Amino acid sequence: MKKLFNSAERMVDDMIDGYVAAYPQVRRGAQDARVVVRARQVKDPARKVVLLIGNGSGHEPIAMGFVGAGLLDANVVGDVFAAPSADLILDGIREVAGPAGVLLLISQHSGDMINGRAAVMLAEEEGLKVRALPMYDDISSAPRDRLHDRRGAPGTMFVYKILGAAAEQGMDLDALVALGEAVRARTTTLAAAASPGISPLTGKPMFCLPDDEIYLGMGVHGEPGIGRVKVGPAGDLVERMVAALLADRPIARGAKAAVIVNGMGGTTLMELLTVYRETRAALTRRGIDAVAPMIGSYVTTQEMAGFSISLLEPDKRMLDLWCAPSDSPFFPRIEDHTA
Amino acid sequence: MKKLFNSAERMVDDMIDGYVAAYPQVRRGAQDARVVVRARQVKDPARKVVLLIGNGSGHEPIAMGFVGAGLLDANVVGDVFAAPSADLILDGIREVAGPAGVLLLISQHSGDMINGRAAVMLAEEEGLKVRALPMYDDISSAPRDRLHDRRGAPGTMFVYKILGAAAEQGMDLDALVALGEAVRARTTTLAAAASPGISPLTGKPMFCLPDDEIYLGMGVHGEPGIGRVKVGPAGDLVERMVAALLADRPIARGAKAAVIVNGMGGTTLMELLTVYRETRAALTRRGIDAVAPMIGSYVTTQEMAGFSISLLEPDKRMLDLWCAPSDSPFFPRIEDHTA
Repeated sequence: MKKLFNSAERMVDDMIDGYVAAYPQVRRGAQDARVVVRARQVKDPARKVVLLIGNGSGHEPIAMGFVGAGLLDANVVGDVFAAPSADLILDGIREVAGPAGVLLLISQHSGDMINGRAAVMLAEEEGLKVRALPMYDDISSAPRDRLHDRRGAPGTMFVYKILGAAAEQGMDLDALVALGEAVRARTTTLAAAASPGISPLTGKPMFCLPDDEIYLGMGVHGEPGIGRVKVGPAGDLVERMVAALLADRPIARGAKAAVIVNGMGGTTLMELLTVYRETRAALTRRGIDAVAPMIGSYVTTQEMAGFSISLLEPDKRMLDLWCAPSDSPFFPRIEDHTA
Repeated sequence: MKKLFNSAERMVDDMIDGYVAAYPQVRRGAQDARVVVRARQVKDPARKVVLLIGNGSGHEPIAMGFVGAGLLDANVVGDVFAAPSADLILDGIREVAGPAGVLLLISQHSGDMINGRAAVMLAEEEGLKVRALPMYDDISSAPRDRLHDRRGAPGTMFVYKILGAAAEQGMDLDALVALGEAVRARTTTLAAAASPGISPLTGKPMFCLPDDEIYLGMGVHGEPGIGRVKVGPAGDLVERMVAALLADRPIARGAKAAVIVNGMGGTTLMELLTVYRETRAALTRRGIDAVAPMIGSYVTTQEMAGFSISLLEPDKRMLDLWCAPSDSPFFPRIEDHTA
């Protein structure tokens, strides 16, 4: 294995070391070195609800890269591909908890849900005001009539950013939960995997695919999706994916769709820009206006090749918050050039 | 080949289509669709020297991704891995030329130099005020006594950004060239390649390397470097590379070094952050203060795995310009947290 690490034992801590040394927006937690905390001052700490998430590492820049003003107050960093323990998440909650309350975001995967819910219970026992918001958006992981069984996928970034901006502006805990549920209800994601990443734990490819096939709907750890399709022109694949997204949750002619084209790690920006071109064209054919895109490799699975398309039909407030400035090391500036 | 394109003929134009549709900072050239031009207004167009570069595509986000305020005024986009023709570069120069003059940056590779120099001659014949600045920084491509034979490598980003910020502030053409030469003289880069990218032209890996070896000093198209080393702890490899960089151009104890850790495309952010940790540690051991890092995959060769380390020993003005705000789709915000 040619991964550039010092040792399996140190890989996560070395990464965090490099990260907090590089960026003034973040520091390590005082209670637990596996918690990455926002370092810059909050304007009105008594009023600001704090947002955090725990997740397995190996998917960077998410979520460590999104700690900062207008985004996350903390990220609890688990081992590679492993949900952090309830105790570790509790350390994260303690680190940032304030009088306005804590919102724990959870990308829906079983380990994350179990440990996240347990951490919330433990925090409540300590008298902290905490709520949890499960996030799910992957249309291939369960049908619409079992919406609550869906997995978290890159469309969760809509929730991170919109709630992060709203919390920064002083929105209270109940309103944030309601806004997060509304964003979740308007978000859909579908992924297409082309080739596997190499697990840094085993040194082995995480799945196998024939040379001429792409797997539709695979999850970020290689979880099963809809099935295989033959490699062909990017436009045909994207048309099929956009059709599936809009069949799951229609968007009316004349409406806007905010778009995330996320690369899984090993897919070039050339390709992602091509996918955005085709996504925008597929939406335009249906009278839908593609706005405020986020294009790049933000939710990765090592050097896995592939991408996902996420759509959010935003209301005016959601779009404003999606485009609000933020200050983290890796979340890009989003602009609505139709505005 | 599993690249996500429509066809070999359309891949570059489709990419540019997606790019200009996504980002309000850029538009296509009026004279030539292969020129990407800054779309937002310049404060004082009569006074601002314009900066541009031509380069082969397939290395994105460089250089298309860096068009915008405080950076490049235009990028002339060649075919994949091929320098744009002199005529195409001339179109780019015409597109942005103004009374304060044009500075054509050229990353030193033979095709780029020949076509760039020819374009400058053609532009001068049309009465335009143009100068060219060759950029080179790769210490493995030629010894120090043949400095002018070195290749351009990711350390050229120091030149882009510092000159881009200086031009935005109104620096004149002669002063920009002198500043660019000074930055170039203080910049060194060394790369380590781990595994090849797949050429979108041939569908084949661009070179071969045994499973347990890393190639030191390979160029961005797979050009030969210093030689092979065995894979081992990242810290050992980085120490060796930093020692080579400082042997080539020493930095005194007590001085600062701005650092770029660039990923070649297929290397994870986990690894790049680990490389930054080790680079900073290697500098610290020598009493040198690592500042204002840029970490990520900015100069890529498709999904090639590997990274480079670039060091710039900045004076106060260079560091200020390196950290000045800019507004392009893909150049990150750089901060000097020691300031």
